[in-house]
Amino acid sequence: MKTGLLALLFLISAMCYSQKAPKKNYEYINPMIGTQRMGHTFPGATIPFGSVQLSPETDTIAYELNKKYNGEVYKYCAGYQYDDKTIVGFSHTHFSGTGHSDLGDFLIMPTTGTLQLNPGTAANPQSGYRSAFSHANEVAQANYYKVKLDDHNIVAELTTSQRVGFHKYTFPKSSDSHIILDLMAGIYNHKEKNVWTFVRVENDTLITGYRQTQGWARTRTVYFAMAFSKPIKNYGVQKYDADNIYKGFWRRFDETKNFPEAAGKNLKMYFDFDTKEGEAIMIKMALSPVSTAGALANMKQEIPHWDFEKTKRDGQQLWEKELDKVKVETINEADKVNFYTALYHAFINPTVYMDIDGSYKGLDQNIHKAEGFTNYTTFSLWDTYRALHPLFNIVQPKRNADMIQSMLAHHDQSVHKALPVWSHYANENWCMIGYHAVSVIADAVAKDNTGFNTDKALQACINSSNLEYYDGIKFYKELGYVPEDKNGSSVSKTLEYAYDDWCIAQMAKKLGKQEVYNDYIKRSANYNNVFDKTIGYMRPKLSDGTFKKQFDPLDTHGQGFIEGNAWNYSLYVPQDPEALIQLNGGKEKFAVHLDSLFTMTLPDKYFENTEDITRDGIIGNYVHGNEPSHHVVYLYNWVGQPYKTQQRVRMIMDAMYKPAPDGLGGNDDTGQMSAWYIFSSLGFYPVAPGSDVYALGSPKIKEATLTLENGKTFTVSAKNQSAKNVYVSKVELNGKLLNSTFIKHADITNGGNLVFYMGSKPKK
Amino acid sequence: MKTGLLALLFLISAMCYSQKAPKKNYEYINPMIGTQRMGHTFPGATIPFGSVQLSPETDTIAYELNKKYNGEVYKYCAGYQYDDKTIVGFSHTHFSGTGHSDLGDFLIMPTTGTLQLNPGTAANPQSGYRSAFSHANEVAQANYYKVKLDDHNIVAELTTSQRVGFHKYTFPKSSDSHIILDLMAGIYNHKEKNVWTFVRVENDTLITGYRQTQGWARTRTVYFAMAFSKPIKNYGVQKYDADNIYKGFWRRFDETKNFPEAAGKNLKMYFDFDTKEGEAIMIKMALSPVSTAGALANMKQEIPHWDFEKTKRDGQQLWEKELDKVKVETINEADKVNFYTALYHAFINPTVYMDIDGSYKGLDQNIHKAEGFTNYTTFSLWDTYRALHPLFNIVQPKRNADMIQSMLAHHDQSVHKALPVWSHYANENWCMIGYHAVSVIADAVAKDNTGFNTDKALQACINSSNLEYYDGIKFYKELGYVPEDKNGSSVSKTLEYAYDDWCIAQMAKKLGKQEVYNDYIKRSANYNNVFDKTIGYMRPKLSDGTFKKQFDPLDTHGQGFIEGNAWNYSLYVPQDPEALIQLNGGKEKFAVHLDSLFTMTLPDKYFENTEDITRDGIIGNYVHGNEPSHHVVYLYNWVGQPYKTQQRVRMIMDAMYKPAPDGLGGNDDTGQMSAWYIFSSLGFYPVAPGSDVYALGSPKIKEATLTLENGKTFTVSAKNQSAKNVYVSKVELNGKLLNSTFIKHADITNGGNLVFYMGSKPKK
Repeated sequence: MKTGLLALLFLISAMCYSQKAPKKNYEYINPMIGTQRMGHTFPGATIPFGSVQLSPETDTIAYELNKKYNGEVYKYCAGYQYDDKTIVGFSHTHFSGTGHSDLGDFLIMPTTGTLQLNPGTAANPQSGYRSAFSHANEVAQANYYKVKLDDHNIVAELTTSQRVGFHKYTFPKSSDSHIILDLMAGIYNHKEKNVWTFVRVENDTLITGYRQTQGWARTRTVYFAMAFSKPIKNYGVQKYDADNIYKGFWRRFDETKNFPEAAGKNLKMYFDFDTKEGEAIMIKMALSPVSTAGALANMKQEIPHWDFEKTKRDGQQLWEKELDKVKVETINEADKVNFYTALYHAFINPTVYMDIDGSYKGLDQNIHKAEGFTNYTTFSLWDTYRALHPLFNIVQPKRNADMIQSMLAHHDQSVHKALPVWSHYANENWCMIGYHAVSVIADAVAKDNTGFNTDKALQACINSSNLEYYDGIKFYKELGYVPEDKNGSSVSKTLEYAYDDWCIAQMAKKLGKQEVYNDYIKRSANYNNVFDKTIGYMRPKLSDGTFKKQFDPLDTHGQGFIEGNAWNYSLYVPQDPEALIQLNGGKEKFAVHLDSLFTMTLPDKYFENTEDITRDGIIGNYVHGNEPSHHVVYLYNWVGQPYKTQQRVRMIMDAMYKPAPDGLGGNDDTGQMSAWYIFSSLGFYPVAPGSDVYALGSPKIKEATLTLENGKTFTVSAKNQSAKNVYVSKVELNGKLLNSTFIKHADITNGGNLVFYMGSKPKK
Repeated sequence: MKTGLLALLFLISAMCYSQKAPKKNYEYINPMIGTQRMGHTFPGATIPFGSVQLSPETDTIAYELNKKYNGEVYKYCAGYQYDDKTIVGFSHTHFSGTGHSDLGDFLIMPTTGTLQLNPGTAANPQSGYRSAFSHANEVAQANYYKVKLDDHNIVAELTTSQRVGFHKYTFPKSSDSHIILDLMAGIYNHKEKNVWTFVRVENDTLITGYRQTQGWARTRTVYFAMAFSKPIKNYGVQKYDADNIYKGFWRRFDETKNFPEAAGKNLKMYFDFDTKEGEAIMIKMALSPVSTAGALANMKQEIPHWDFEKTKRDGQQLWEKELDKVKVETINEADKVNFYTALYHAFINPTVYMDIDGSYKGLDQNIHKAEGFTNYTTFSLWDTYRALHPLFNIVQPKRNADMIQSMLAHHDQSVHKALPVWSHYANENWCMIGYHAVSVIADAVAKDNTGFNTDKALQACINSSNLEYYDGIKFYKELGYVPEDKNGSSVSKTLEYAYDDWCIAQMAKKLGKQEVYNDYIKRSANYNNVFDKTIGYMRPKLSDGTFKKQFDPLDTHGQGFIEGNAWNYSLYVPQDPEALIQLNGGKEKFAVHLDSLFTMTLPDKYFENTEDITRDGIIGNYVHGNEPSHHVVYLYNWVGQPYKTQQRVRMIMDAMYKPAPDGLGGNDDTGQMSAWYIFSSLGFYPVAPGSDVYALGSPKIKEATLTLENGKTFTVSAKNQSAKNVYVSKVELNGKLLNSTFIKHADITNGGNLVFYMGSKPKK
């Protein structure tokens, strides 16, 4: 019996060893997706909505390259390109998937051997501090990045907390080990970008300082506190400023060596160490939008220890918790990687923008305190109003309400009294068009996610839509459209304003403001004013009321549209597809029109040199790699051909989202591309944010469980799901057959289940 | 009887009309004193220790002039030169009497006619916005300045509160009236000085913003809020920045006209108005070291009205109150003007540096709050430790204790953990030598003015005296002197460190820290190490212990001294005149030596190109126009020839202080020159701050009443006083004959009277 018991124990033990623990959600995340070519995502470490995005830069744009805005700048929006062979260093702030660039604050690089303070070139990495690396020695996980720096024989590991980047560098034995803090490096680093830098070596393990830059954000300052796990042996500062400044009595000091204070426009620092073989030097770099004291307090509260693994684990648990909100089963592992990575990318931006005590810098450059909400920045609203914020209204309603509070604070601090267009670290960078913050707010109101003052919010929306010096609004109000001779990209603007105005109307209606509703529902029909019935396209109109003569509906250049052509943009009336279909001659004609969008060929010349549109993101003349058409595939629902939505939405998912570095068909645009994928994978999509309706498509998942903040659960399942079974034969909501191809937001938030019955044949 | 009564009433009435009200103290102030050539004072408006010094600029140094630091820069330290014929505008910050320059923030100029945004040249004022003016149309009083701008037919009036500059511009009838806000203008305005400027037009009467500069202060930001009494008709911004910066979507705006937000390195703004004949447009410009919100709060609390006269009157009453602390009667009006103007100049710097709520920017560039004290900046300590702070210990003890608290806060915020050398708006500019904050603190301790933590203060003094990378201190500690081959101006440094060390010793003794006393009393004898007995001069010594071979005791260039020669500096052992006299061969020999100082001739070549020393400030080889010799004339007291002190101190007062624009023999140095005059006028002087002893001289006043903060009164009277009766025959303290030529601080603070009996013959 004794022997039998032992044998049993052995057996159980062996079973335990051989039985793998189930894979966690976050382990499906592949941060490398989108790092090649167009995705503009970064592979480094961050927590959900984290203030720090600690990630490698494979190139920094040298000043010389930046005499004008060029393609190199565009390529390095996130600092990392998968095809590159060298790493310049690791910096603390990155946008995820944007089409313009900034940030890259506080680049750190560990080196050994002769000190070099210039990064050197990719062609000749040994000419500077950069290092060759190989993907074989690289690990990218949620909140963890690791790489071997071949030229220095150093293993670099990165992780983060909310406001702190945690570096671990494992050195070889050397009496010539260095850590470089390049305070000149940055993403899109033009010559005049560095405005001021101020640094103090507080003691032999603590550096504090800040840097102010003029980039995409015009007046941006980031403060830091940087702690070393090991005392610095020696340190120094190199200054690259013009010589004709007042030096005065500073001349008495040798400011370059072991002098604890430095200030100027262009500084680089280095810190020397002796290292034993395999010795790790760790760095905690805390950021603050407010002060170095704030950065230090953030560090002390978030990471009071030197346990790298704990910080990594804590962050991964945060990811696990966020990802648990949408648990999916898929037909294969690749889909799961795609789905969870999409969710990961959707939960990076916007980012928390405040100290641990709620202090943050406002648009007026004064310090404000977020009372009763978490303050966020990085609102790329022209992108994200479409699907990302609607997604948040389902799976992140509390955060979305806080984001709206942040937008309202932005409005209050704005000298224009306007909601954000693109909120960017205490700046408005005005990127793209429209006043789509109103869509985000209206969508939250429509979905009863109103943890904010709705009357105040409505007034802020009204203010934003009447900012007369903004992008032709004066004319739009006078004429009912933006005249192309007064303000370019006039059709895109007219269409998007009309949609935004519809959002305001919906919100006003729900809030019982009938007069506001009347005004704005009228404005929302303004798309009619730029529709040329003679040719069946939206077309730029001049201030004299005539349409612009020269016109090519395929061209994205100078035709009255921005990042799009008339073909795509003429489908942009999300607030009223029925009316759009009528304008286009009815359902049948419109369906043919939609078909040809996907099947025609758009020659390169029509989109060459148009940023954000590349061949990678195009199917026919349908541009998925950029936003204006994201709702288009769902329009088949309005012409009685939902099977075409079903087929094409699956086709787009397959074509544009792959679990590989080059897997994204375009810039992820701070999560909008990913949010499209998440919705489409779940089988529904918010064609008109601001309404509470979702149009159905064809789910890609087998089963999804949405755990909502209200405690309820909503499941989606696809019976008979497979790669070929892209068509939906019937849909049941809570066991009852659904007679339309639409569901409502309350269907989700009330909890329940949505079952798609899949098949390989279209149900015409 | 009725007729008789009427006649009597008429008579009384007539008497009243003819009888002038007695002149107030502040009416004797002539802010023009020192505005010509060397004084570097400013004629504009300020209140005692006011944060705002609102004053005209007669020239701004164009960028082109500033390729190197030149005489023009030196000339315009305070922005105004009396000989100039044009005024450029009115700016809000000015040092009083410094020998280096900075500030000149936020230059405002009212104009009429065609808008011009460049200042133009003095030779051709019509080439820009500047205007001709004449002294005939100029009024300068305490807290009030008025001038007619001839080219624009505008009368400008200025007054201030603590943090607000109040402008009143009386315009002619014009539909083309402008107010220019030149945000590029500044004092010592080199090409790279403007680091960043940020402005918002909050509404049609309110502008907010800030400017950061790198000048004498390396990282200095001043925030403002600017209110107009009349709505702006139109406004605009001109930007003079490099073109290769990222403009992005800002391009959509015409930022130059009526666009409410601007940011960049180099900006100018203008505001247009229609004006009626004689219409006054008023401006309140509030400053803050913290934020635009702080500036606005300062404005709202300090000047909630538009009553220019009230603000002017309030400020003049503040002056009256401060001047009342030392009421004097003099033998003539000129002396009274000199005395009260000296008191005025003594009470301008240091300046209050905090918002009305106590918030201020610290050396670490973080925001701090002054708890329990008023925070000050502008400590020109190499100058002011000598007589200005000792004067404060008598007539401004509370403020002086607050200044020391400010210095201790500076120490705590300093990454060097050092007391200020030259505290400059949240910066250390390191100007001049020594660590003389310790003298100020020791003097306060010696005089029992200790509203601060004395143990902490002693530690701060010890820290400052051991900052090894500062100016040869490492060598000084090792060798007992600063070796000239390691660190220039070595003798001046050795001598001043030795004096400062004596101050620390005295403070330690009084605080019962015997060990500290022992260390520092030893250090205080280090002056011996640079005295060359073979020639009888202090002389630079090399690190090998030998004296520098080439040596000329008259020359101020490269001889081991700063702003002085060996002749003058060899007399700098204020802590132990007896020992100095012994070193120099005894009293008789030393007296002869002193005599020759005043009677010899110093050829120009010995001080040409030495800043701060000019013929204006020299008597023989005695340099009064700069500080190192300020105690020297009182040394006759130690050789038994006080009559020579008496005669020469009166001679110096007459020669170096005149009630005229060119009245000052040198830079007023933030009040040190004036403090010397005040002490000397009262008949005593603090030869060694840090002791509680004053050496007697020859008073210039007839009678002075010092009303002390402890409620007591100390009077000084000079019997038989006249211009010729410069000799003192006897002195009585509280009715008792004084047997020495010294009094103690307690003699003053206990209250009482000091009576000098004057005569025309020396009492040998």
